[in-house]
Amino acid sequence: MIKTDMLIIGAGPTGLFAVFEAGLLKLKCHLIDALPQPGGQCSEIYPKKPIYDIPAFPEILAGDLVDNLMEQIKPFEPGFTLGERAETIEKQEDGSFVVTTSEGTKHNAPVVVIAGGLGSFEPRKPPIQNIAKYENKGVAYMIKEPEDYRGKKVVIAGGGDSALDWAIYLSEVASEVSLVHRRNEFRGALDSVEKVSDLAQEGKINLITEAEVVGLKGDDKLDSVVIRHKGEASEEQIKETDFFIPLFGLSPKLGPISNWGLEIEKNAIKVDNSYDYQTNIPGIYAIGDVNTYPGKLKLILCGFHEAAVMCQSAYQKIFPDKRYVMKYTTVSGVDGFDGSRKEAKREVVKSIN
Amino acid sequence: MIKTDMLIIGAGPTGLFAVFEAGLLKLKCHLIDALPQPGGQCSEIYPKKPIYDIPAFPEILAGDLVDNLMEQIKPFEPGFTLGERAETIEKQEDGSFVVTTSEGTKHNAPVVVIAGGLGSFEPRKPPIQNIAKYENKGVAYMIKEPEDYRGKKVVIAGGGDSALDWAIYLSEVASEVSLVHRRNEFRGALDSVEKVSDLAQEGKINLITEAEVVGLKGDDKLDSVVIRHKGEASEEQIKETDFFIPLFGLSPKLGPISNWGLEIEKNAIKVDNSYDYQTNIPGIYAIGDVNTYPGKLKLILCGFHEAAVMCQSAYQKIFPDKRYVMKYTTVSGVDGFDGSRKEAKREVVKSIN
Ligand SMILES: Cc1cc2nc3c(=O)[nH]c(=O)nc-3n(C[C@H](O)[C@H](O)[C@H](O)COP(=O)(O)OP(=O)(O)OC[C@H]3O[C@@H](n4cnc5c(N)ncnc54)[C@H](O)[C@@H]3O)c2cc1C
Ligand SMILES: Cc1cc2nc3c(=O)[nH]c(=O)nc-3n(C[C@H](O)[C@H](O)[C@H](O)COP(=O)(O)OP(=O)(O)OC[C@H]3O[C@@H](n4cnc5c(N)ncnc54)[C@H](O)[C@@H]3O)c2cc1C
Repeated sequence: MIKTDMLIIGAGPTGLFAVFEAGLLKLKCHLIDALPQPGGQCSEIYPKKPIYDIPAFPEILAGDLVDNLMEQIKPFEPGFTLGERAETIEKQEDGSFVVTTSEGTKHNAPVVVIAGGLGSFEPRKPPIQNIAKYENKGVAYMIKEPEDYRGKKVVIAGGGDSALDWAIYLSEVASEVSLVHRRNEFRGALDSVEKVSDLAQEGKINLITEAEVVGLKGDDKLDSVVIRHKGEASEEQIKETDFFIPLFGLSPKLGPISNWGLEIEKNAIKVDNSYDYQTNIPGIYAIGDVNTYPGKLKLILCGFHEAAVMCQSAYQKIFPDKRYVMKYTTVSGVDGFDGSRKEAKREVVKSIN
Repeated sequence: MIKTDMLIIGAGPTGLFAVFEAGLLKLKCHLIDALPQPGGQCSEIYPKKPIYDIPAFPEILAGDLVDNLMEQIKPFEPGFTLGERAETIEKQEDGSFVVTTSEGTKHNAPVVVIAGGLGSFEPRKPPIQNIAKYENKGVAYMIKEPEDYRGKKVVIAGGGDSALDWAIYLSEVASEVSLVHRRNEFRGALDSVEKVSDLAQEGKINLITEAEVVGLKGDDKLDSVVIRHKGEASEEQIKETDFFIPLFGLSPKLGPISNWGLEIEKNAIKVDNSYDYQTNIPGIYAIGDVNTYPGKLKLILCGFHEAAVMCQSAYQKIFPDKRYVMKYTTVSGVDGFDGSRKEAKREVVKSIN
């Protein structure tokens, strides 16, 4: 059982910044995310694109925003359960909550903060009849640990940035990388497309275009895929492989959270914005894209504000008898749980003569 | 009469960021501030100190925050009325407002946004009996245009950063700079104190410590100051000068705004945070440190959020018949009023063969 002060579901920009605000209040956080990496939509959908409306950044790449947030929260040593989806929540007798993930990992905290954005990112699966049988037995929809593929044969399917980028990355790790795509055209950053083209020419990526994986074979685990060319059943090829990784994008689904007894409106969780972004269940908050209230804007900067306001209320929930007096970071500095301290240089009082 | 879409009172971080959010909605802004420079508390009180809780900045100097915001809003070409205090507001027949400053400058807009922070920064004046007589006739409490002092004799009083920094700056501009301070010790950034010390030794600053300006002389305008040493009336010196600039700090006062018929609570303006940060007078909004509502936090990041939300409502106020659909800056780019355009690089669709 992982125990923490504040359990945050969703490690997008909102959930990450909540760790910082909680840390200022000396609350420890743990984050759960279905994705293998933190950053939510910013990391998964548009890491290399600029955002122009983050205050005081005339321009920042979404991926850099996430890196900066990770750096900012580092002193507060958040825990992470990545690549697992929060499935169930149970209220305990002591008023705290236990949240269990798809992989059975259990977390316990007095306060739960849902920062789930548009929902848990779920892979779009190709319509191959027996694919479920091979999940975790050779079929993976996202790459959590690249080292798992060292020295192995890998077939990747897809024509977007993820497929391109992972094909490039694994070409250095796997013993053989094939990239299967329905068309000749790839849609992605120019340099990724060019790099794949180069690696294909060097023979480091086995490029199979105008083709689709239509079947999977193997007894206990995957041992080969059936590749059909130009949609013709007569043009099928069987290819031995250890792994098949279809990367057709991830789409967010509110998913299990919608069955937690929370008030849902327009696929989002209703909160009381005139106070603290708490849901209809006391002790469960919802911040960022996942919540809704009159005038709600689904913007990153709004999630940041909601995180700060929510933390004040959560603090009172956890320590009903303590009184927290907000102090400016500039004046009080920042004390990390790792022993680090940041503070402004003191003014000097110095005589001149 | 200065005409604009959105008149913002207060050019602190909140007012500045409001220009950006308004600009995304194609609304033009004009800002009024009592200070001669934008940035509010950040520029006036702690420009050289780090802030640690601006999202995605593990650390940023308050002055750099303001510079970044100025850079971010540049494409939206805000107008500025600086060094003037907003004094009165009058509702016009067409529903718009006219705001007049201490210097009589008039501004007209359909929407007024008060981003006045803790109030208009007003100088702490030294207790010299006839000082009011010389205001704008040799006595100035802040430096609006350094060039006004070129080739002139200047007496600065004070022992903090402002006095130190302006003495250093004007030592290159004025024909003679004297710095008068009650003590030997100065309180400020180490390098400023050392620099003044060096300039005093080089004879470029005339340092007069353990002394006070106690009298002002001159017929139509100031021509000399009376300096008393060590509090002894017997040790007085008369010093010819063109200007006397007492820099004893500025303190914020809500001031005239408190008589505008707005609901005031705890020295702040009550707003409806469950919707759009509008005050009890339709068409007048209050955002940032100047407002109050249940759960209010006087933090910069909260002012940013309030600015974004307020702009949506202000837009509807100005264009009741238009329907604005929010678009992500990443997706739509940013079109400046100056003709500039920022946008994400498009993805390429490219065939590999
Ligand atoms: C192309 C594009 C451009 C954009 N441009 C801008 C812009 O210019 N400016 C701007 O402000 N915003 C922009 N946005 C929106 C911005 O990305 C979102 O507002 C922001 O990501 C929301 O952050 P969040 O942390 O609330 O949620 P998300 O970023 O969606 O993160 C939520 C996380 O929660 C996880 N999660 C959800 N449910 C579960 C569960 N049950 N178990 C485990 N994990 C779960 C998800 O996997 C996800 O990682 C853009 C979005 C897109 C797609
Ligand atoms: C030492 C110190 C450290 C701080 N540290 C932090 C920190 O770490 N993190 C954080 O988030 N915040 C911090 N703050 C608070 C932060 O500076 C404020 O929240 C922020 O400046 C508020 O911005 P604002 O734009 O709402 O108001 P302000 O910055 O106060 O600006 C308001 C402006 O309005 C002008 N004005 C008001 N009335 C009138 C009028 N009638 N006519 C003309 N002009 C008028 C004023 O002159 C002023 O320039 C700190 C503050 C101080 C003093």
